[in-house]
Parts: sequence; structure tokens; C-alpha cells
Amino acid sequence: MDIRYPGGKKFRLQNREISQKPDYGNRGMTFEEDINVSNQYYLTNGIAVIHKKPTPIQIVDVDYPKRSAAKIKEAYFKTPSTTDYNGVYKGRYIDFEAKETKSETSFPLKNFHEHQVVHMKNILHCGGISFVLIRFSVTDEVYFLEGDKFINFWERMKNGGRKSIQKGEIVQFGHRISIGIRPRIDYIRVIESLYKEIL
Amino acid sequence: MDIRYPGGKKFRLQNREISQKPDYGNRGMTFEEDINVSNQYYLTNGIAVIHKKPTPIQIVDVDYPKRSAAKIKEAYFKTPSTTDYNGVYKGRYIDFEAKETKSETSFPLKNFHEHQVVHMKNILHCGGISFVLIRFSVTDEVYFLEGDKFINFWERMKNGGRKSIQKGEIVQFGHRISIGIRPRIDYIRVIESLYKEIL
Repeated sequence: MDIRYPGGKKFRLQNREISQKPDYGNRGMTFEEDINVSNQYYLTNGIAVIHKKPTPIQIVDVDYPKRSAAKIKEAYFKTPSTTDYNGVYKGRYIDFEAKETKSETSFPLKNFHEHQVVHMKNILHCGGISFVLIRFSVTDEVYFLEGDKFINFWERMKNGGRKSIQKGEIVQFGHRISIGIRPRIDYIRVIESLYKEIL
Repeated sequence: MDIRYPGGKKFRLQNREISQKPDYGNRGMTFEEDINVSNQYYLTNGIAVIHKKPTPIQIVDVDYPKRSAAKIKEAYFKTPSTTDYNGVYKGRYIDFEAKETKSETSFPLKNFHEHQVVHMKNILHCGGISFVLIRFSVTDEVYFLEGDKFINFWERMKNGGRKSIQKGEIVQFGHRISIGIRPRIDYIRVIESLYKEIL
């Protein structure tokens, strides 16, 4: 059975990772799938190896039945201390987080945890390539925002400024990624153009 | 209460990740802790950002009680498709697996999955730094074995050869890491000497 959202977008259960926030999980699903198939394209073609990290889980109780697989009976989601995606392109360390918003005017920074931003700073300090992929779901626009620019907006919030990045700021400081077919979200192309002197 | 193994080694529950193979988990615990504190040292000192990936879990059933955290009621361990540790040093992608053995004469290759070796090949193809840390627990010797050398032993097994790497081979082709204090297992020093032309 096909369940469809208003607007006709299909609800796809198979690839859905059960999320701590079910509403948010549904919203984010398609974007995550798009990134995963893009990563699969990069992998299959020997371009880059980028994986989504497993969701961190605190395991409390496990049953070890005889003759069958261990069953986790009690566990809880942990707050991620790093970003979701990392890997390698041309020897370089690549690290990013991908988030989307239903808002048409701004990207709310509550989508991030302080730990993740500290992680981004550490990555930049050690010479890694850090960025954020942001999707405006209503218009299906995807932007690549470099880590140092994202951190500037985060610091603005911490200094009492707005709790979001205005869409106009993302358009100005980020890089629009046109949605393609193979790969669907070609963020490596942006990396290639932004960091060509070190690649 | 202190539970002690024969030989007096203390069983430490706090930092133990509950493992699919409880016996193996206990054996591996101290080595994993040593690596984790070494990674913490690198992180704190701004040298490298290396994290252990969360154990991949297949979630089947989750309870979302009101006013409290989501509780995972049924889940299973998945076979890892990548290695356990990755991160960045001087901009370069670092990727490794850490395993120990009680054997004093050889390292059994059954500690690895085919998927992980494919992953190591992919990493090398994309210019990443891939290796294996091997600990002989009885003598507390740790070796750094480069990915391409490890893969040669794996291929030998697949071509009908021995299902382990002899300790003498690891001594010959690997690099011994003396156990230190800060950091405890200084594998970055080996990377620095082996890959200095690209760092």
C-alpha cells in the first residue's frame, strides 16, 4: 500500500531508520535516502567512501538465547556527539551533517547540538573538510554550507543573536546543489571546486 | 564489588560495551579502552580527531512513552560493514580496526569479516590511510599493520592458504607500538613516520 503525504510525496518505510522523533524522522527520510544513494554512487564508482554512522544506542539489557541471535531487550537513543556522515575523498577527511527544514525562510539551529559544533571545530582544526548540507523541503533546494561559515552563525546565536540562519544568508554564503540523477546530491563536486588547491 | 579473572585482571563493567559475543567482548575490553583513551588524548591536544563508530543495530520495536525517552524494546546487532575507528589527522583520512588475540603464535583472520576487508580496499583506493592494530594479549604486544599488507594475508587465506597471520609475519611486516602513558597506544607516531611524504 502506498501512503502519500499531502502533495503526493510517497511515504517509504523500507529504508526508514526508526527515529527518536518520529515526526522529524519522516520529514528527514527522503533527504537521508538521497544522500545514501549518492554515497552509494560514489562508492560504486570508486570516487569516495562516505558512510552514515550508526545511531548511537545505550544498551541496557540483552538476551542471549541459545541457537539464535542476541536480542536487545532494553536500550535508549543517545545524543550524537559527532556528525552523521564521514569518509574519504582523494585522501582527505570529509565530515558533514545533513538536515532539512519545512521553513521557507530560515533554517532553525535547534537541529544541531553543541557537541556536534565542537566536533566540527575539531575537524577544521585538524585539517578536515567539514560542512553542512541543508535542504529546504518545500522547494526542494539543497545547499552546501562550509563548516566555518556554519560555525559563525552558531556563534552569533550563542552571543544572543537569532536562533536560525536566514535563507538569504544560506543563499549568499552557501553553494546550491542542483538535484541530479547520478549522483542525486553531488556534494563532491562542490568539494572539488572549493578545495581544489589541496586535492 | 570487584570481579577478577584468573590472573587477577579486573573486570570493569562501566566502560564495557555489551557485545554480541560476551566472551570476546571481555577479552577485547582493555584494548578498546586503551585505544579510546589514546583517541581522547589526541582530541584534547588537538592532534587528531578519531572516534569509534557506534555498534550498528537493527531496531525492530520502539516504545514512545509520554514525558520520557523513547525505549527500544527489540533490536539486534548487525554485522559491521566498515571498520570500527575513523577520523582525521593533518587533513588525512585515517581508518582502522583493532583486534586482539590470546594466541601467542598467530592472529586468527576469523576476527574480520569480508565486508570490512572490502571497505579497507575502498579506503586505500580513495587515498585514505588504512591499517589494523593487533594486540597479543598474553604478552601485551601491539602491532600496527598497514592495510595493504593485511589484505595480502587475507587474500592468501582466500586462495586456500592459512587462516591466520603468523606472529613472525606480523613482527616482520608490522610496526611494534610500545605501550606508553600519554598516549597509551601512540599509533599516530607510526602514521607520522610511514606517511610523512603526504602529511
